[in-house]
Amino acid sequence: MTDGFEAMWAELLPVGRSAASGGYRRHAWNAADAECRAWFEDQARSRGLAYELDHNGNQWAWLGDPQGQGAIVTGSHLDSVPDGGAFDGPLGVVSSFAALDELRERGAQFAKPLAIVNFGDEEGARFGVACIGSRLSAGVLTREQAYELRDADGVRLPDAMERAGYDPTGIGADDGRLARIGAFVELHVEQGRYLSEEQPVGVASAIWPHGRWRFDFHGEANHAGTTRIEDRRDPMLTFATTVLSARKKAALAGALATFGKVAIEPNGTNAIASLVRGWLDSRAADEATLTELVQAIAQAAAERGERDGVKVELTRESYTPVVDFDGPLRDRLARTLRAGGRLGGVPVLPTGAGHDAGILASAVPTAMLFVRNPSGVSHSPAEFAEVADCLAGVSALADVLEDLACQ
Amino acid sequence: MTDGFEAMWAELLPVGRSAASGGYRRHAWNAADAECRAWFEDQARSRGLAYELDHNGNQWAWLGDPQGQGAIVTGSHLDSVPDGGAFDGPLGVVSSFAALDELRERGAQFAKPLAIVNFGDEEGARFGVACIGSRLSAGVLTREQAYELRDADGVRLPDAMERAGYDPTGIGADDGRLARIGAFVELHVEQGRYLSEEQPVGVASAIWPHGRWRFDFHGEANHAGTTRIEDRRDPMLTFATTVLSARKKAALAGALATFGKVAIEPNGTNAIASLVRGWLDSRAADEATLTELVQAIAQAAAERGERDGVKVELTRESYTPVVDFDGPLRDRLARTLRAGGRLGGVPVLPTGAGHDAGILASAVPTAMLFVRNPSGVSHSPAEFAEVADCLAGVSALADVLEDLACQ
Repeated sequence: MTDGFEAMWAELLPVGRSAASGGYRRHAWNAADAECRAWFEDQARSRGLAYELDHNGNQWAWLGDPQGQGAIVTGSHLDSVPDGGAFDGPLGVVSSFAALDELRERGAQFAKPLAIVNFGDEEGARFGVACIGSRLSAGVLTREQAYELRDADGVRLPDAMERAGYDPTGIGADDGRLARIGAFVELHVEQGRYLSEEQPVGVASAIWPHGRWRFDFHGEANHAGTTRIEDRRDPMLTFATTVLSARKKAALAGALATFGKVAIEPNGTNAIASLVRGWLDSRAADEATLTELVQAIAQAAAERGERDGVKVELTRESYTPVVDFDGPLRDRLARTLRAGGRLGGVPVLPTGAGHDAGILASAVPTAMLFVRNPSGVSHSPAEFAEVADCLAGVSALADVLEDLACQ
Repeated sequence: MTDGFEAMWAELLPVGRSAASGGYRRHAWNAADAECRAWFEDQARSRGLAYELDHNGNQWAWLGDPQGQGAIVTGSHLDSVPDGGAFDGPLGVVSSFAALDELRERGAQFAKPLAIVNFGDEEGARFGVACIGSRLSAGVLTREQAYELRDADGVRLPDAMERAGYDPTGIGADDGRLARIGAFVELHVEQGRYLSEEQPVGVASAIWPHGRWRFDFHGEANHAGTTRIEDRRDPMLTFATTVLSARKKAALAGALATFGKVAIEPNGTNAIASLVRGWLDSRAADEATLTELVQAIAQAAAERGERDGVKVELTRESYTPVVDFDGPLRDRLARTLRAGGRLGGVPVLPTGAGHDAGILASAVPTAMLFVRNPSGVSHSPAEFAEVADCLAGVSALADVLEDLACQ
């Protein structure tokens, strides 16, 4: 007897939840992460699936031969951003197990191997790089690069893995495994408010190109109580202007630009800052728009910096080009779901968020399903999905997997 | 044989200095603070002065009877802001010892007890309250209030004292000691650029009223990559507008308003902030101007908050009314220095910075001397004074002490 969707959900719900914030702190290789991983292994074994841990720390649960060709893979991740919500990641993993249960109840006959995957460290909360598990497997993050990553306490990624009981020596590209995958489908809670009560499940068209840019505003530390205004070189002013300018220019471009992370030196109440560091997260429907937007923000920063006596340095910390999901697979998903006679049809929509599916798309035919989130909120405890919509997602995923794996 | 000014200076110079920033990290009860305190005790004893530690952790070095009436006290503090400069505080303490040496060389006959003091935790870097040592002694910070103070790691002030080997049980008002003080004179490096090569030493007229206000901007955490601009409640925008507005309104009022410290939640690159906390330091020549300025900044914050869907909360964390230094004492200092035939006369100037002298002024006739700082910079490694100006300060302080203590 396996757990149903709601029972699985209830089991995961308390793991890594902060009583203070109500948000989740499931970060790579911490205790909450270990509990999530133990839960995954338990779900696999209780269903008689072959449990496998790959050398990058990703977990796999196999029905059929793990070495077989053309495997159909579904799943997502179990880790969270700092004080994140319950759905981003776990909804995909729990729905995968529930969809398999539904297919077994339907008496489905599998023609291809089927796997459920939990990719490690998708959110990048600990080492500052998102999708580490899938990036390693796809070879877009090398072993050497991964070995250099450190968390906020200076702990290196391989040491963190080792302390959690994992052997880091074999991390790196996993071409053989990816070559055996025929299709990867990731179900995910929607992170905006496009889907509606009438259309609770959608198919992804593309992931917007996106990146992170660090702006370093170099001013001069000085006493806030004695330094005349004309003697100041206050980088907080340049930063503030850049924040407002980013918002304005993004709105005009129909794009997104956000400063959500800031570090200040010396960060004293009575000290003019010597350095303000602000991280810009920006995304747009196409790469040309994104490039132009970031250039325009940088120019506004430089112009104000000139006035403030503040030097502005810009560093691109990460960049992900546009991901167009596999066209035939996407169309096949949409056809399958519409054939299921779903209320209101099945929207096809882009997303601004990165996902393991976006990483795998370079190597494997990949698609995504989204489930409605009426709050539109994610990466926060307010992230939410109705049970009825989640069950609609499970049923949609079951249809898709049946279509792909049972022919 | 006692050390001269330059030898004392060289001895203190490396204590608590960060190799990375070049700034000082002498914070209440840390290892660097302990080293500074050991140095003070050593200087006292090597001069045959009676060393005394009061129950608030302030250090005293006495020439003459510590129980005598009408004592003349000079000194300052040895702690620093985070990554502060070498002069703010230590210049006053070192100059005090050097001035006593000079008076002894002059063969001065002391008619009153003379003390040199090192007040503890003047900068408030650790517990967020400035002038803790003098505030406790003057009774403006109570024992109960002090016991509630915690540092960034949650360590309570009495526990921090205890760990450093000090007994915190007796902290609190020290009326008897203050009643025995006839005058307190604090020499301090200037923290602006009023003094000139021709006028390297000045006398303080007043300390501007000043305070710290915490602005809490409450928005809604959300995914930076998926949340439409119209669905956002981004407190970073409200904060940025408030920073720019504070600067503009302060300039118009001939006052100062600075945001130098910020805390953000959750502070993730791909998360719209749920909370931005910004601390405003503001000062003006009079209290009415200061009150109006802060009100105007708060109103600008509230108006923009309305537009952003962000709730703004304002908390006054500290406030110090204007301090007019004792008129007769101030005039006497100026007369004494001018009688010394100093080049260019002796300017009398206000300051925007708080000092132990400002705290003591409520209980004891108090005055201050300033020594030129050609950089105008303080609370930063760039804080600076020329040796010649420092020696001019020592000589000025010696004249003042001779006038006050040797009649």
